[in-house]
Amino acid sequence: MTVHATAQAYEPRYIRLDANDNVAIVVNDFGLPAQTRFACGLELRNFVPQGHKVALADIPEGAPIRRYNEVIGTAAQPIQAGEWVDEARIRMPTPPELDKLELATAVPAAQAPLEGYTFEGFRNPDGSAGTKNVLAISTSVQCVAGTLQFALKRIKTELLPKYPNVDDVVALTHNYGCGVAITAPLAIVPIRTLQNIARNPNFGGEVMVVGLGCEKLVPERLLPGEAGDSVVRMQDEAFDGFGAIVDAIMKMADERLAVLNRRRRETCPASDLVVGLQCGGSDAFSGVTANPALGFAADLLVRAGASVMFSEVTEVRDAIHLLTRRAINEDVGRALIREMDWYDDYLAKGDADRSANTTPGNKKGGLANIVEKSLGSIVKSGSSPIVDVLSPGERVRRKGMTFAATPASDFICGTLQLASGMTLQVFTTGRGTPYGLAAAPVIKVSTRTELARRWKDLIDFDAGRIATGEATIEETGWDLFRLILDVASGRTKVWSDRWGIHNDLTLFTPGPVT
Amino acid sequence: MTVHATAQAYEPRYIRLDANDNVAIVVNDFGLPAQTRFACGLELRNFVPQGHKVALADIPEGAPIRRYNEVIGTAAQPIQAGEWVDEARIRMPTPPELDKLELATAVPAAQAPLEGYTFEGFRNPDGSAGTKNVLAISTSVQCVAGTLQFALKRIKTELLPKYPNVDDVVALTHNYGCGVAITAPLAIVPIRTLQNIARNPNFGGEVMVVGLGCEKLVPERLLPGEAGDSVVRMQDEAFDGFGAIVDAIMKMADERLAVLNRRRRETCPASDLVVGLQCGGSDAFSGVTANPALGFAADLLVRAGASVMFSEVTEVRDAIHLLTRRAINEDVGRALIREMDWYDDYLAKGDADRSANTTPGNKKGGLANIVEKSLGSIVKSGSSPIVDVLSPGERVRRKGMTFAATPASDFICGTLQLASGMTLQVFTTGRGTPYGLAAAPVIKVSTRTELARRWKDLIDFDAGRIATGEATIEETGWDLFRLILDVASGRTKVWSDRWGIHNDLTLFTPGPVT
Ligand SMILES: [Ca+2]
Ligand SMILES: [Ca+2]
Ligand SMILES: [Ca+2]
Ligand SMILES: [Ca+2]
Ligand SMILES: [Ca+2]
Repeated sequence: MTVHATAQAYEPRYIRLDANDNVAIVVNDFGLPAQTRFACGLELRNFVPQGHKVALADIPEGAPIRRYNEVIGTAAQPIQAGEWVDEARIRMPTPPELDKLELATAVPAAQAPLEGYTFEGFRNPDGSAGTKNVLAISTSVQCVAGTLQFALKRIKTELLPKYPNVDDVVALTHNYGCGVAITAPLAIVPIRTLQNIARNPNFGGEVMVVGLGCEKLVPERLLPGEAGDSVVRMQDEAFDGFGAIVDAIMKMADERLAVLNRRRRETCPASDLVVGLQCGGSDAFSGVTANPALGFAADLLVRAGASVMFSEVTEVRDAIHLLTRRAINEDVGRALIREMDWYDDYLAKGDADRSANTTPGNKKGGLANIVEKSLGSIVKSGSSPIVDVLSPGERVRRKGMTFAATPASDFICGTLQLASGMTLQVFTTGRGTPYGLAAAPVIKVSTRTELARRWKDLIDFDAGRIATGEATIEETGWDLFRLILDVASGRTKVWSDRWGIHNDLTLFTPGPVT
Repeated sequence: MTVHATAQAYEPRYIRLDANDNVAIVVNDFGLPAQTRFACGLELRNFVPQGHKVALADIPEGAPIRRYNEVIGTAAQPIQAGEWVDEARIRMPTPPELDKLELATAVPAAQAPLEGYTFEGFRNPDGSAGTKNVLAISTSVQCVAGTLQFALKRIKTELLPKYPNVDDVVALTHNYGCGVAITAPLAIVPIRTLQNIARNPNFGGEVMVVGLGCEKLVPERLLPGEAGDSVVRMQDEAFDGFGAIVDAIMKMADERLAVLNRRRRETCPASDLVVGLQCGGSDAFSGVTANPALGFAADLLVRAGASVMFSEVTEVRDAIHLLTRRAINEDVGRALIREMDWYDDYLAKGDADRSANTTPGNKKGGLANIVEKSLGSIVKSGSSPIVDVLSPGERVRRKGMTFAATPASDFICGTLQLASGMTLQVFTTGRGTPYGLAAAPVIKVSTRTELARRWKDLIDFDAGRIATGEATIEETGWDLFRLILDVASGRTKVWSDRWGIHNDLTLFTPGPVT
């Protein structure tokens, strides 16, 4: 992507992403008043808020409105050059038809491999490498959550200090396991998610489960083949009351902490990284600053041999025609379509559609509709071939760029990417969100410098310098790539970990509750 | 219900609930071996586990199997007297057809009012009365949960000790508010739930909300008409970073704690109570001991003028023909049918049906299918007329026995009953579960003495004495009624509150995520 930007910061300034675009977005903080004249001679006819679109030319009613050299809608009324192109002036196009897509017709050529990049990770017996050394305690049912929280407090106070090489203890609590239709076809999604999360590389293979004893999701199903001596069942008749149950959980945790405490960071090639990409609270700058910088960093990761995942079905749906072309082969292209199709049906069953995705915050930030949001969202996947597609909660299988199908919900996407094996997440945000995960570090990237300044103790990386012309996408992408290696190595701590702001796991449970 | 029981405890013993029943359940701990002879002369042909059914007479293939004088299924094969009637020997009947039910044909006569029963409660400005004095901090979106948890720790350490009359501070965090189809028809359920929970009488009318700023569920929608000075929005441009946000939350909490601290317990009539009834981890004794005792206590509460709610649609569905007759009028009967019908459709959409309700624990405990479970479940609603029906999350409107439609999931049911205004819950359990709520005390009642003994520091009340003949349903029901008044008054603390075992709120979100 080539960014055509006018003049300096502080001067009236807009960004046009492609020479064919007939709209551009206003860069200046707090927007620009009517009669503002840009260096190119264009004069604003009304006030245009920051991040919102201005028409660069007259657009007749019904004519296409172009951004990213793609059609984000048609003019709902005649629009004059210099007018604010707000949500009401754009008619949303229909989404690309899934049976008319080109498959693997524009597979990008492989870029030159990047050699010699490493991070300091925790090597696991199965060959994977973690970025943290965490004891995870799984649960087979939500009934045990309160008991585990009680035990967790004691584990953190009484046991964890004995094991200085262990970073943290995390309770994998959730709202599943009973009171659900466990044999319904869609139950596979949350069950697979819980099975796979326990195997995340950051947990070092030391699994344990707290269960109740009468739940539907039996611990044996949660830990196939390994449940033997790794389960504390509260209803076990050997337990004489709550105290005895808590003691049993602590004893099992103590044994596993002792094993994890022997882990040490060692130099691992960057190809051992499994990086998840996500965005939340997007604005019009997401597709101009943070996501392009992340896309550049993602290309660097792919060139270094890492596994990288992007996600969020409802935010790629309207740009799917750009992705199926990029699929490495027709099978991968068809897998992309399969996931889109599944989600179209899922939304329709709930009488919803893709327009449900955009938030008031998105719109306030200048994103008129899901088409514009999607075009800005997929930029973070960079420019390498899409090598694989995962259904929600499946484990990553390949190096390179994978589409891991998830809802766009920050927490569900984060949970599913953890199940897929993600050991570090990069999260771009325009409006700002204090999102964090206990299981893996999250690097929060702001789309605007104003947000990075205001949330100086929440945002880890400022991509807003691209909009003001202080840095290029390439420079910023390299900086972000180096930060990823630093965070993966434990050399730099992200803000959410410094404060301990960690959101709970949130399962994707498309099946009904009983 | 008249319980016909054989002989003493320790002697071989079964319970037949009705003279027309052709099965009875074995009472003795650990079950009884083949050849055991009961006082009546019946001899067991195989081992029968505790709580499981024994045939009292020969039952030909296809003939009805009766318990509670109701048909719980038909014989899948010829069954001989003395045989274990296990799950495989019973064919499940079809559920009652919703268009063929009798409405209000057997409305129970009002029982004599009970005068003079009181509890020590916290009177609210709107006339309601709480059983606890709790500051609740609502959230409009899950994005803020980590931040609120961070602030909550500081509030509990730095502020709460200044206000000795406040029992607790509770964060009403949840997995909703964004990343969902907020305009889908079913979104009304979680939204109404969140709106109404904030108004629970235990929270004293001192509402506050932590929001983000770009979420779909805007705080104004969460607190209609009251949001003005009761919202901390994290993205507010006045906040210079995380520290400033946390300070703002603490300041708002401090003001509300000062108001709540002026509340004092005062004598309130028992008619001010709003009691929720629930069961979880049921076994065959649920319908014989705990639920009948609770039904008797519920009748006492109704006679004292209180509002009482029972719930759990999938556990009443197969006994709905008994409830529509008990409806106080045809409108209430039709409202019962409306909720059953809605749930049938909801389950069908997810390719599930009512058989998804029973758990491995239920079956191990002797409950062959959902019909038998339902018959035992509805007993807890006692014998008074059903005066009203609530859709999920609606506020209670009437004194007397209300059916509040909810899923059977313990946590979703608890959350929805809190939204309906419940200030105390009674929870019966056979297999045992450590369930508890921060917002209202939960009295846990065991169906068996063995569980009450083993879980001496989790179970608050033992109804198992009914099975062994040591106490009658009436005696046990009166004891439970008195315990309810004690707990509501703060004189007796339930075990979940003593340990602080409190499950998170769990919203019922039948609509899709985006
Ligand atoms: Ca996103
Ligand atoms: Ca999003
Ligand atoms: Ca997201
Ligand atoms: Ca139940
Ligand atoms: Ca329940």
